[in-house]
Amino acid sequence: MKKEHPVQVNGKENGKGNGQPRYLVLADEVQTMIEAGTLRPGDRIPSIRHLSERYRVSIPTVLHAYTVLEDRRLVEARPKSGFYVRARLSSGTEVPSFSRRIPSPKTLSRFAPLMALVDDVANPRLVPMGGANPSPALLPSEKLARITGAIARRQARAVVQYDPPPGCPALRREISRRSVEWGTYLPPEDFLLTNGATEALHLALRTVAKPGDTVMVESPIYYGILHLLSRLGLRTVAVPSSPREGLPIGAVRKVLEREKVAALIVIPNFSNPLGSLMPEAARAELVALAAQRQIPIIEDDIYGDLSHRGERPACLKSLDADGGVLLCGSFSKTLAPGYRAGYIAGGRWHREILEAKVALTFGGSPLPSLAIAEFLRNGGYDHHLRRLRATFREQILRMREAVAAAFPREAKISDPQGGFVLWIELARQVDSMVLFEKAREAGISIAPGHLFSPAAEFRNCIRLSCGHPRTPAMEKAVATLGELAKRMSG
Amino acid sequence: MKKEHPVQVNGKENGKGNGQPRYLVLADEVQTMIEAGTLRPGDRIPSIRHLSERYRVSIPTVLHAYTVLEDRRLVEARPKSGFYVRARLSSGTEVPSFSRRIPSPKTLSRFAPLMALVDDVANPRLVPMGGANPSPALLPSEKLARITGAIARRQARAVVQYDPPPGCPALRREISRRSVEWGTYLPPEDFLLTNGATEALHLALRTVAKPGDTVMVESPIYYGILHLLSRLGLRTVAVPSSPREGLPIGAVRKVLEREKVAALIVIPNFSNPLGSLMPEAARAELVALAAQRQIPIIEDDIYGDLSHRGERPACLKSLDADGGVLLCGSFSKTLAPGYRAGYIAGGRWHREILEAKVALTFGGSPLPSLAIAEFLRNGGYDHHLRRLRATFREQILRMREAVAAAFPREAKISDPQGGFVLWIELARQVDSMVLFEKAREAGISIAPGHLFSPAAEFRNCIRLSCGHPRTPAMEKAVATLGELAKRMSG
Repeated sequence: MKKEHPVQVNGKENGKGNGQPRYLVLADEVQTMIEAGTLRPGDRIPSIRHLSERYRVSIPTVLHAYTVLEDRRLVEARPKSGFYVRARLSSGTEVPSFSRRIPSPKTLSRFAPLMALVDDVANPRLVPMGGANPSPALLPSEKLARITGAIARRQARAVVQYDPPPGCPALRREISRRSVEWGTYLPPEDFLLTNGATEALHLALRTVAKPGDTVMVESPIYYGILHLLSRLGLRTVAVPSSPREGLPIGAVRKVLEREKVAALIVIPNFSNPLGSLMPEAARAELVALAAQRQIPIIEDDIYGDLSHRGERPACLKSLDADGGVLLCGSFSKTLAPGYRAGYIAGGRWHREILEAKVALTFGGSPLPSLAIAEFLRNGGYDHHLRRLRATFREQILRMREAVAAAFPREAKISDPQGGFVLWIELARQVDSMVLFEKAREAGISIAPGHLFSPAAEFRNCIRLSCGHPRTPAMEKAVATLGELAKRMSG
Repeated sequence: MKKEHPVQVNGKENGKGNGQPRYLVLADEVQTMIEAGTLRPGDRIPSIRHLSERYRVSIPTVLHAYTVLEDRRLVEARPKSGFYVRARLSSGTEVPSFSRRIPSPKTLSRFAPLMALVDDVANPRLVPMGGANPSPALLPSEKLARITGAIARRQARAVVQYDPPPGCPALRREISRRSVEWGTYLPPEDFLLTNGATEALHLALRTVAKPGDTVMVESPIYYGILHLLSRLGLRTVAVPSSPREGLPIGAVRKVLEREKVAALIVIPNFSNPLGSLMPEAARAELVALAAQRQIPIIEDDIYGDLSHRGERPACLKSLDADGGVLLCGSFSKTLAPGYRAGYIAGGRWHREILEAKVALTFGGSPLPSLAIAEFLRNGGYDHHLRRLRATFREQILRMREAVAAAFPREAKISDPQGGFVLWIELARQVDSMVLFEKAREAGISIAPGHLFSPAAEFRNCIRLSCGHPRTPAMEKAVATLGELAKRMSG
């Protein structure tokens, strides 16, 4: 999209600009200066007065050009200071590539968890960009604390007791109410409460697949799912996923023709780590394809509530006519990971999943469930979500800019539609495990890319979580990461 | 032990009584009247004055005889009312029998959970003698509520966050401190927190055994363990266990000589359902035997804190020299089942179990863990335990008496040394599943015996939980059960 013919305003040169409104011609002119490097990220762009004089246009025309440049995400206004060039995030910034090859199944006989990354979650001394955790500063922790305390007092005897599966009726009722937002309606009795979405995925997988079976996943894919597949003795076929549109239906079809697949795991809404969003047509095709072949779909909707713009997307479950979709979710990314408020709507496997839950962990904890239920009923969850979405969107944007400014030029950065993680592809020669170690030594937690692949691909990728508010320490951390990446790319 | 030669006091007849202190002779005399049915359960025994006159002994002698009869659990004092004959629980009451045969392994391909029993846990309309649940009325629920509320407010941000394995350091510290009571000392880093003891057992089993392996258990055994074994595709060899002394070491040895066993599951302290307590010598032999053959022991110590008299027994783990014992426990029977505060000290499998926990349910909930930790530190846990033990002991005693009075004479009743469940063996022809259904129709929850066996043995047994305070409804329920059992025995 690079402009090849910079134009002068006011007919000094009447190339492509001819016939265009003057503000657009001016905007193009400034864009050219930015793309040519004449104006660099962080530079203040020429003042209204200066531009008005230099290009002989009116002040409203300059202002109009500024708004166009803002819309193009090239400049940003800083209060009482003027307009500045944003970091390189022109349309020229590439999102990470993805392969079109058709993969073959892999045995995850020993997918090693990166325990250092798990430990990092509870380490306050690290800049927290490793685990995909929302900062407690962004969660309604005070309100939840008040609700929790009140319920503990009011229902002192109820909350010490077992909460046998399917679990707390009040919470299942509230989740059911919210299911309308997901493009469907699921009654409370369709849900089983779980210890986070992790247990939901575990129960789903162990119910629809047996050791040795092959499960299709997206690639890259959240490492927790690969770890789970490994523990359950499952084989994996990992279909390269589009950074924008998720699982490509053509590739799915080809794999299903070639392989016997016991189940599909899909994150249609803001996949982790790509942040991709499956288009509606692809969703319908996917559900139809799976139904026709009687292959269960395990849908991980944990980021569904975190769209960056517009409506909350529907879930695949809303297209499910025969109970073949097992919907897994939780409030761990939006309210309180520590409350372990997960759920599964297991479709035609509901009963079997319930029995497995009884065997493996028995019940849940009534107090956290009651507190989440109360928050969903009266706590202003939608209001909270609006703020949280805007915050994550902004944090993602800032992080993209910071990464673009600090990292080597060849770095490709994902452009997530929701959620709060970024996926960054670095030069081939960068080993992200080395980067992970060096970053950790520098007090920074990141997630290395090979964790997101059953075949240890993406060695040159990293995932950065933007779940925490930006701080000077984080700014510095991104600069440090960029320096490390540059040195390793050299 | 029946006295064959009733004696008259005061030399009227100088048989066996000769030379014995008079109070003992008098006590024997009253015992004879009780055993002969002259005095029946519930009858008031003759007054001090009456006995003193009738047998021409001093009042202190009569009082002394009363205390002997109390010690023999033949009579009980009722405040301001006198002494009464207790229900038939003379030394003649039999505990359930157990077989000496050496069993062969069973495949638990589909051990069906009795979901009705799980549902009953949350059904306040049933007399709760089914699930082994402590009544919230006996738990320090108010104090826990206060502690929980205070922590929620004080640490609002901390408690919404993930608590990654091994879990809440404060709780692991307190459990470690308590391990001294178990005849050993285990440092905090030996523990991993789990979602109740159920998850602890699950993690232990899936780590030390793989599908198709054989695991040795006691028989009868808590059905949750059988359900777990079934879900994990494990075979089971169930060694008949002594109602008083638990797993017989001779039988264990024979089975180990004959079968390849991947692990042993043992409840040495107050097994569920028998309430048996393994003698110390047998424990040492068991641990040595397993160590020598490199067979891991999974120890379920969930009832360990609930001894009816004397010290808390040690755990097998205290005899473990090489990390071969995996100790599982929780505070579900003593503080709050709904807080899911379980733990495992996994010995040499600690790391592997931790990784499995990360994959299967990830972390726990920090708030309940912090609350239990605070209760253990400052809440008077030992004081609470003393009361709870005395209460359970009393409730077990009352229930034994009530069952002895209401059930058919051939009923055999366990004599638990701790915990709060009774095991009752009925006539061969009684089908306890039918009894379960009939009881449920009558508003009573009990646990049918076949659930406690991998081979659906114990069809004529039931387990009654005494975790709830006795109420008139419970008295009536026991009478109803007795009636039902009598009709089915006839």
